[in-house]
Amino acid sequence: MTDSVLMFSLPILSSLLCLTWHTCHGGKVLVYPVEGSHWVNMNIIIKALHSKGHNITVLRSDKSWYVKENSSSYDTITIPVSATLDEEFIVKAITSVIDIQRGDSTVFAFMTLVVEMFKKMNEAHVTLKEMIVNILENPELIKSIQDSHYDILLTDPCWGGGTVLAHYLHLPLVYNVRWLTVGEGHFAIAPSPVSYIPLTGSGFSDKMTFIERVKNMLYFGIMIIQDRLTLRPVYQEVCEKYLGPQSDFYMLMQSADLWLMRGDFVFEFPRPTMPNVVYMGGFQCKPAKPLPEDLEDFVQSSGEHGVIIMSLGTFISELPSDITEQIAAAFAELPQKVIWRYTGGRPSTLGNNTLMVDWMPQNDLLGNPKIKLFVAHGGTNGVQEAIYHGVPVVGVPLFFDQYDNLLRLKVRGGATIVSVATLDKDIFLQALQEVLHEPSYRENMQRLSRLHRDQPMQPLDRALFWIEFVMRHKGAAHLRSESYKMPWYSYHSVDVILFLLAIMTTFVAAFVFGVKFLCTRICYKHKSKQD
Amino acid sequence: MTDSVLMFSLPILSSLLCLTWHTCHGGKVLVYPVEGSHWVNMNIIIKALHSKGHNITVLRSDKSWYVKENSSSYDTITIPVSATLDEEFIVKAITSVIDIQRGDSTVFAFMTLVVEMFKKMNEAHVTLKEMIVNILENPELIKSIQDSHYDILLTDPCWGGGTVLAHYLHLPLVYNVRWLTVGEGHFAIAPSPVSYIPLTGSGFSDKMTFIERVKNMLYFGIMIIQDRLTLRPVYQEVCEKYLGPQSDFYMLMQSADLWLMRGDFVFEFPRPTMPNVVYMGGFQCKPAKPLPEDLEDFVQSSGEHGVIIMSLGTFISELPSDITEQIAAAFAELPQKVIWRYTGGRPSTLGNNTLMVDWMPQNDLLGNPKIKLFVAHGGTNGVQEAIYHGVPVVGVPLFFDQYDNLLRLKVRGGATIVSVATLDKDIFLQALQEVLHEPSYRENMQRLSRLHRDQPMQPLDRALFWIEFVMRHKGAAHLRSESYKMPWYSYHSVDVILFLLAIMTTFVAAFVFGVKFLCTRICYKHKSKQD
Repeated sequence: MTDSVLMFSLPILSSLLCLTWHTCHGGKVLVYPVEGSHWVNMNIIIKALHSKGHNITVLRSDKSWYVKENSSSYDTITIPVSATLDEEFIVKAITSVIDIQRGDSTVFAFMTLVVEMFKKMNEAHVTLKEMIVNILENPELIKSIQDSHYDILLTDPCWGGGTVLAHYLHLPLVYNVRWLTVGEGHFAIAPSPVSYIPLTGSGFSDKMTFIERVKNMLYFGIMIIQDRLTLRPVYQEVCEKYLGPQSDFYMLMQSADLWLMRGDFVFEFPRPTMPNVVYMGGFQCKPAKPLPEDLEDFVQSSGEHGVIIMSLGTFISELPSDITEQIAAAFAELPQKVIWRYTGGRPSTLGNNTLMVDWMPQNDLLGNPKIKLFVAHGGTNGVQEAIYHGVPVVGVPLFFDQYDNLLRLKVRGGATIVSVATLDKDIFLQALQEVLHEPSYRENMQRLSRLHRDQPMQPLDRALFWIEFVMRHKGAAHLRSESYKMPWYSYHSVDVILFLLAIMTTFVAAFVFGVKFLCTRICYKHKSKQD
Repeated sequence: MTDSVLMFSLPILSSLLCLTWHTCHGGKVLVYPVEGSHWVNMNIIIKALHSKGHNITVLRSDKSWYVKENSSSYDTITIPVSATLDEEFIVKAITSVIDIQRGDSTVFAFMTLVVEMFKKMNEAHVTLKEMIVNILENPELIKSIQDSHYDILLTDPCWGGGTVLAHYLHLPLVYNVRWLTVGEGHFAIAPSPVSYIPLTGSGFSDKMTFIERVKNMLYFGIMIIQDRLTLRPVYQEVCEKYLGPQSDFYMLMQSADLWLMRGDFVFEFPRPTMPNVVYMGGFQCKPAKPLPEDLEDFVQSSGEHGVIIMSLGTFISELPSDITEQIAAAFAELPQKVIWRYTGGRPSTLGNNTLMVDWMPQNDLLGNPKIKLFVAHGGTNGVQEAIYHGVPVVGVPLFFDQYDNLLRLKVRGGATIVSVATLDKDIFLQALQEVLHEPSYRENMQRLSRLHRDQPMQPLDRALFWIEFVMRHKGAAHLRSESYKMPWYSYHSVDVILFLLAIMTTFVAAFVFGVKFLCTRICYKHKSKQD
């Protein structure tokens, strides 16, 4: 239970990995971003918009970790806040999650964890709310933003501030989205039958057994409860105060003009979607550039055996040393060369074939034909780059959506997954050798690469086209369905079904009553005659 | 009731307006088309594929009305059949429908009509089934088709033969689709909440009152019954005989690799869709060419008042004369010039301003800036051309999906609709004048035109890209969801919900039993003590 249960609770934290808000015409774009890797993604779009001649203003908090005040591609408006989510908060949460993954877990421990996560998420969004409140409470700032006549507001709806501000300013709203304040974006915009659409963190694919479907339904229930109890109230309060008592945050969130989804159906399981969802998965990928000379020499020295590269992302600077010893020992037994991005201590078991580096040009390496295997933690960027370059993966997922991301490769036959909870030299070595020696892994990743690259338009160009479309037409209301305006019981026709059942019941009752009445009369007459 | 009820029953006939099947490397494409206007659409795609160097073979019956045996863009394989739907059958059905529209209607008359339609539809598909059976029963033909190694089968699934053949031959399957054997295509492929998705023929928009939602639900029920009782069994029998007893026609129909949908969300109400649905609405539209000299002179002679054009499609060669007299009288009162495509008798009330023609270059006229208004019956082609050129419409719908098509323009403020049942000079003239003199009609159609034309890729190019994508990758299974493989009770999680309810009931029962048991014990002890 431990794994899937923890996997489930992890994405709850996901929206935390992305802190604060910021400032920056062709067109004039106001950006309300999210921190962390979300900002890295947003910045790619901002740079592309800037290179097309648009003026971008980014709203940032004075406590921002990632969003710099000065940039050649955007201006900023800095909002003073008393506090923001700090990096320590995130790292602590992550560390405790790894600890729990490595230990035992009971239903009680799971429930405690879920409640703790709910509390942390609520605390986080209460903290994050300060920025939007400080904007809305500053009439001069609001006037200056209004006077700037922005064409659109671009935000990552993983935090709710951008959505509220767009509605306050009556600006067309464009999302750069994978996560909402709660869960995966599609769950808010498109019909999502939980019978074949796995909840994020469930660890399930789109082919579920009955018991998996039961669990998936329960996870869906937890997602709803989390949303209703912890997140929606935070932004609902802001909406009611600044947008009027009738406003509904969830409805406002659903009413965005355009959803630029960081995914596609080479990566994601096929599922229902909506006309205003535009898929830009892999928009960050690009052809490999030549490697620095020393790295190129190292790669070429691998000969026919080729090279393995390993990176577990930027958040985990250090793994428990017993794990790194096992990983290094496994690498040492291989004829391949290994490039391992790791900033923790040097394991004693490190082989001569392994080069430890603080940083590596991951995309350029993945595009190098000598690279045989990518050991990855399953962050979206790495997985998308592996697909783009067609490199098979041994996944060591740690938290958030990482297991789910890797699962999508595994199901397509392009990856195998090793749990950090059970990882030792033998298990890790076996996984490496399997992916190195079984050609189907590479063939499947190459097939995914061909499918991903075979598009009428590159993902980033598609995103830019549709952003500019919303600017040109001042929205995209014609692509937005009526569904979000309906209460749930009307949307699901519960009222209609109850009405029809009531009519049917009335008819049946009238019929039964009529027959009974007739019988009584006939019996009565019959009796009368007999008498 | 008459109108909406009849409108609803009309699309049932829609799949009839499209008779027979046919034959024709770059890539090798086997086409199993449908007759009538469906063939006109399919032929545009065939010509485009041919111009890109593909070899096309069209399967046709020897009784085909539309699909010619010799063409520069495709080869044919002609299948002898004993009978096919004849034009007379269609025209009779249409005429009777107009008669009923003009007369009174009761619930009884409606039910009679629905039953009659069910019978006619069943008869039609039993007749059409002969072609696919004759193909599958001809081992030489099958071998020759197999030896030709086609890359894909392209069909219009309005008739079921193409779907069966693709599965028999194990060919990737591409649909050129708006209608299935029953109803609108989206209802089979994507989640379709009837709370805001109007059934075809309902005459409703995506904003329905409670009573409209109740009616829409009932129409949905009738669609399901029609499918289960009359159409599915016809092709199910063929599937079981030739594809194995376990095969299920509806599942095979849903499993097509690519759905090229003849619509888009400028025309259609926004609604859920699926990753393997590609919208090509307006693929038949093209910029206007110069008019023939005489027509150009007539158009220019209109001066500042401009020109009205009218066409009620190719099927209605003659309208009841009282209606044409009223129409002509209304036109005669206008300062505009009128070009009226009509092959029936010349009305006595025809004004000097009205030119009656047997045929007109509709697309070239609509693209002419002098054209102020289009009087149309609401066929898909005409409506799409009106959107493409931004010309406002007065709609006179007669049958099938025509009312619904016009309704989509009316809701967007680009058209007004006149019922043929109530049409007289005054009503018609009022409608014409309203659309001529209220600028919003033209503005709205121009807005739709801008939205429709603002696409990263032209619809026909998009269709070609995706057809070739399916050829290159031998299918598009990665875009096809798992949903169609599930029984309905699993898809809708009915089994999971019942299971969870059973567990909850057990727990509650156990709790109640436990409390009762405890109470009894306590009471017993208490009593014992008292004793």
